[in-house]
Amino acid sequence: MAQKKFILAESDIPEQWYNIVADMPNKPLPPLHPGTKEPIGPDMLAPLFPMELIKQEVTSEKWVPIPEEVREIYKIWRPTPLYRATGLEKLLDTPAKIYYKYEGVSPAGSHKPNTAVPQAFYNKQEGVTKITTETGAGQWGSALSFACQHFGIECEVYMVRASYNGKPYRKMMMNTWGASVYPSPSDRTNAGRSILAQDANSPGSLGIAISEAVEMALHDEHTKYALGSVLNHVLMHQTVIGLECIRQLEQAGDFPDIVVAPFGGGSNFAGIGFPFLRYNLEEGKNIRCIAAEPASCPKLTRGVFRYDLGDTVGMTPLLPMYTLGHNFIPAPIHAGGLRYHGAGAIVSQLLRDGLIEAQSFNQLECFDAGIKFARTEGIIPAPEANHAIATVIREALIAKEEGTPKTILFNLCGHGHFDMSAYEQFLSGKLVEHEVTQEEILASLAELDTPLIA
Amino acid sequence: MAQKKFILAESDIPEQWYNIVADMPNKPLPPLHPGTKEPIGPDMLAPLFPMELIKQEVTSEKWVPIPEEVREIYKIWRPTPLYRATGLEKLLDTPAKIYYKYEGVSPAGSHKPNTAVPQAFYNKQEGVTKITTETGAGQWGSALSFACQHFGIECEVYMVRASYNGKPYRKMMMNTWGASVYPSPSDRTNAGRSILAQDANSPGSLGIAISEAVEMALHDEHTKYALGSVLNHVLMHQTVIGLECIRQLEQAGDFPDIVVAPFGGGSNFAGIGFPFLRYNLEEGKNIRCIAAEPASCPKLTRGVFRYDLGDTVGMTPLLPMYTLGHNFIPAPIHAGGLRYHGAGAIVSQLLRDGLIEAQSFNQLECFDAGIKFARTEGIIPAPEANHAIATVIREALIAKEEGTPKTILFNLCGHGHFDMSAYEQFLSGKLVEHEVTQEEILASLAELDTPLIA
Repeated sequence: MAQKKFILAESDIPEQWYNIVADMPNKPLPPLHPGTKEPIGPDMLAPLFPMELIKQEVTSEKWVPIPEEVREIYKIWRPTPLYRATGLEKLLDTPAKIYYKYEGVSPAGSHKPNTAVPQAFYNKQEGVTKITTETGAGQWGSALSFACQHFGIECEVYMVRASYNGKPYRKMMMNTWGASVYPSPSDRTNAGRSILAQDANSPGSLGIAISEAVEMALHDEHTKYALGSVLNHVLMHQTVIGLECIRQLEQAGDFPDIVVAPFGGGSNFAGIGFPFLRYNLEEGKNIRCIAAEPASCPKLTRGVFRYDLGDTVGMTPLLPMYTLGHNFIPAPIHAGGLRYHGAGAIVSQLLRDGLIEAQSFNQLECFDAGIKFARTEGIIPAPEANHAIATVIREALIAKEEGTPKTILFNLCGHGHFDMSAYEQFLSGKLVEHEVTQEEILASLAELDTPLIA
Repeated sequence: MAQKKFILAESDIPEQWYNIVADMPNKPLPPLHPGTKEPIGPDMLAPLFPMELIKQEVTSEKWVPIPEEVREIYKIWRPTPLYRATGLEKLLDTPAKIYYKYEGVSPAGSHKPNTAVPQAFYNKQEGVTKITTETGAGQWGSALSFACQHFGIECEVYMVRASYNGKPYRKMMMNTWGASVYPSPSDRTNAGRSILAQDANSPGSLGIAISEAVEMALHDEHTKYALGSVLNHVLMHQTVIGLECIRQLEQAGDFPDIVVAPFGGGSNFAGIGFPFLRYNLEEGKNIRCIAAEPASCPKLTRGVFRYDLGDTVGMTPLLPMYTLGHNFIPAPIHAGGLRYHGAGAIVSQLLRDGLIEAQSFNQLECFDAGIKFARTEGIIPAPEANHAIATVIREALIAKEEGTPKTILFNLCGHGHFDMSAYEQFLSGKLVEHEVTQEEILASLAELDTPLIA
């Protein structure tokens, strides 16, 4: 009987995060002030983030210690299990060996608490009493609510109004953990009020919600802001995923040829990918690290590498990113966590340098992959995770065609319990495809007046 | 740093189920034919169940081997973690040590797959191509859908129409695993059509759904029926829960004074309780095993011990049970899994003999307990599980008052991801209490003409 699940002891929770910046041949470019276009220093971020996180954002230390208080909470769901996808392998009749790391066992149901917990911890340490944030479908908002609850920090979430109205269950989850959730645009901020003045029925967007959360954090010295992806420190916190995988694959007597993760802002991909990329950078190995993005929001495969804003309203620094332009409005696909116009600075540099790969997938192919997975492996995946599964199926079928045994690892970043209506739409043939034309992308990019990168 | 989580290796999945019948001082009374009132033999159950399950239903063997094919699927989520509830202990400021076994990590999100998988397996072995069942809110139906999918068996679920319309997410989950789900009463069966003829808008009930599922199974020799609780073999399959706990508590260097589980038909309680009751029966230990039932459906604390039907229409044998009468309609509490009029034969005999305890809890006390748990331990519990948590809080506060350190273990049988609207109602003060009067219980019992037990 083959081993299905590879588990670690509580004492195996990593004691350090891995900071890939230390190993990068070309370091990520610095953020710029949106007005002066000059590099910004740590002090300029101080109104938004606690100093310890700002230090992590710019550190070149290779290993950053994980505080004991954070590991204590990690224990609730970490180490997470690594599985061999024996059922999916059989269905595909592939010589490839497929492994997946399952992050859906966290209380919030995704990998997001891996960074929400340390972010809440460092804020608490520096006397912060309230954290604001934005959320789309609610994965990040629920993770931060859970983390804040643990440290007795107030949590205020601006949730895109369309999701607030249409997907109420994650909002209820945030309330259960004691957070306040407001539909965005709200009348609580200047940003929100100005949008509502133009359109009282605005459905909102992630960009508006970011503006509201940032504005509220700037109001009060004991209030800070938190982001769930894109930034360097956020990506670093997620490396516990890949670090655990390395030890679990040792148990299995295996090592990956290909590592795959869904791609939104980069935290999912960094989490499982960076600890393996280290083998390429340090030892010259050739592991293929593939970022799987939606075809309707293809910043890595069809965007450009230049400086751009993190939000639509212009309250954030300029970041060096593969971007579709900060005014690009992604189609309403069900993988809400992947609907972001740009990629983080580190991932963008790695892609620029040819050190990672990107592939894009249509929504229907992703749900077909998700159903295949649910029916062979049992677990119903989040729509975001289906992008990784679609990649894996593609690669496993190539391996079959070529007759080459390959070892593929992917991040099953969350469960789909709050996305059942999307599956129902797919099964009943009602799920629509969202195409994005080259004209739309060029039009969005043409609006940018931000610095190009040589 | 105290250990929070106690985990076992895949090889530690139990190899045998524990059959408490072997150790009971008074064996459970036999089922009776509803017409003749005579004990029924195994053959009479053959149209509904495969012979191997019928054998398990009546066996007096103490240990029953778990087939390798079943353990292979158990690997997807078993062994499940055991946690020390350090956060809840701190909140309650109690000298008690609290442990919980978390069964919500299964793909269906509850303990139900522990029996759904072996039931599907034995059916497959005997050439069954389709299994019918009923489901209320959907926990059991989704577990059986998952299990049938694995063995390539068709699964047909009759779901109480009120839940089918009002709680669509579990129905979508069943569809995702390939099951057919029909609102009950349906026009597919005589039972359903006769109900619809009386009331075209009938909201349905578990009793009607059982009748429909049983009727469909009787139609076809390759179709059988499956039940998610009450019966002896179902309870036995769940003992993997308690058997794992014993080894995990050994890791912790601990042993329980009190073991608690929610009580619906008995499978949850049996699963964690019976392996510990064995220490009382075999070695004269005094572990208190407490069944926690809803005050609105109090068969153990306010019902009578007599023969009664398993369904409302009278298609099942008469079982010896603590019952409120098979016509008793429990109030629409959110813990749908506990809304059943009777208790299984084994549990009823144990209660009759004073070997276990029962306590009842109001809905509001249960949700208050669930919120306390979610905010200290992170995991959002199923409404059924909240009954166990309410019991634990009560006992932990008694321990505090008495100043006696006690070790309490309970079964966190599932997560509440599909029950967020119930939490929202509670938090917004809209959740109502459901009282049941002595007159209502007596009126329901007065309708029975089934045999009394001396």
